[in-house]
Amino acid sequence: MGKQLHLITDGNFSNQHLQIIKRIHDNIDYLHIREKMKPAKDILKIIEGLENIKFPPAKIIVNDRADLAVMKYGAGVQLAYHSPPASLVKRSFPDLQVGKSVHSLHEAEQAQQEGADYLLYGHIYSSMSKLNQQPRGLVELQEITSTLSVPVYAVGGITPERTNEVIAAGAAGVAVMSGIWQADDPLQNVKAYHHTLNTWEGG
Amino acid sequence: MGKQLHLITDGNFSNQHLQIIKRIHDNIDYLHIREKMKPAKDILKIIEGLENIKFPPAKIIVNDRADLAVMKYGAGVQLAYHSPPASLVKRSFPDLQVGKSVHSLHEAEQAQQEGADYLLYGHIYSSMSKLNQQPRGLVELQEITSTLSVPVYAVGGITPERTNEVIAAGAAGVAVMSGIWQADDPLQNVKAYHHTLNTWEGG
Repeated sequence: MGKQLHLITDGNFSNQHLQIIKRIHDNIDYLHIREKMKPAKDILKIIEGLENIKFPPAKIIVNDRADLAVMKYGAGVQLAYHSPPASLVKRSFPDLQVGKSVHSLHEAEQAQQEGADYLLYGHIYSSMSKLNQQPRGLVELQEITSTLSVPVYAVGGITPERTNEVIAAGAAGVAVMSGIWQADDPLQNVKAYHHTLNTWEGG
Repeated sequence: MGKQLHLITDGNFSNQHLQIIKRIHDNIDYLHIREKMKPAKDILKIIEGLENIKFPPAKIIVNDRADLAVMKYGAGVQLAYHSPPASLVKRSFPDLQVGKSVHSLHEAEQAQQEGADYLLYGHIYSSMSKLNQQPRGLVELQEITSTLSVPVYAVGGITPERTNEVIAAGAAGVAVMSGIWQADDPLQNVKAYHHTLNTWEGG
């Protein structure tokens, strides 16, 4: 089965982001709207911009706010530490996919127990400059994916080149920000991620 | 029919507020949780504190976030300028009372057209020191209440003594903050509001 590619907005969503999404959206599985400083009205405007370029609502995950996801027929909500507990969100909004962002095995186990449908775990790589060091994130990622039953997506500094080892550690896919937003050629990078995620056969 | 008394939190909710609510809650119709700087998790904690003192969820209105109101069986959601439009909230959450905060006749008409169930209009009084001047807020309040069909609650500097003239201008009730939170004797003030609101027979 193909692994997933999640794209997370970087907090500075602009028309430029919309233009990038327009070019790449066939190759991403989910777009997370994560614009922590923006009020609800502005988040809705972003989603309306996506509607205008025919981006499928079923690929949209809204950070923190289940209400906005429901209002715009989004796929789900991504919960952070400051968000409502997954159990409460699942009970009130059973049709939403509920993801939880976690940073340790302990948090991951707790989130699974609360009923989260999937997890984002990170950051896997703390620095782009330490390519030859085994990052702690990858070791714990392996521990988490082998312990839990829900899908775990890895996040944090994951380049197309690093995607293989992340998937080898049991991730169900990767979630990226700078790997696409800051790429010289976002489409080329998306295709590189997509290729690795869909041809991976190791184990 | 009795007019309503809404109490709005002041953005610094603490255990002290909870103690005040415990003493006065029989005499207020709705409590608006308006803690703009607090994340969802902290808003939920406030509501759980209210649950612990047996404050009825059906008297709770959550600012901006319909999802938290739904999760905690609250009465409704209060929308501000930066919030989702009332039309979208009503469509997705038909069981919630949807209030909108407005500051002019134009905004009030728009909110009614969008399907808001009631409005908060203010500020009625800009300063506590100009008791003898006819405040503009009261004139526009009269204009708004005579033009619209939805209930309009007045907010902003309303003391127990001023409640009569606000109701005379057509308000369906008053919403207060400092008039209760900063009162020397909150219970006495609540009773004073309550008495005026429930004995008013002018017109």
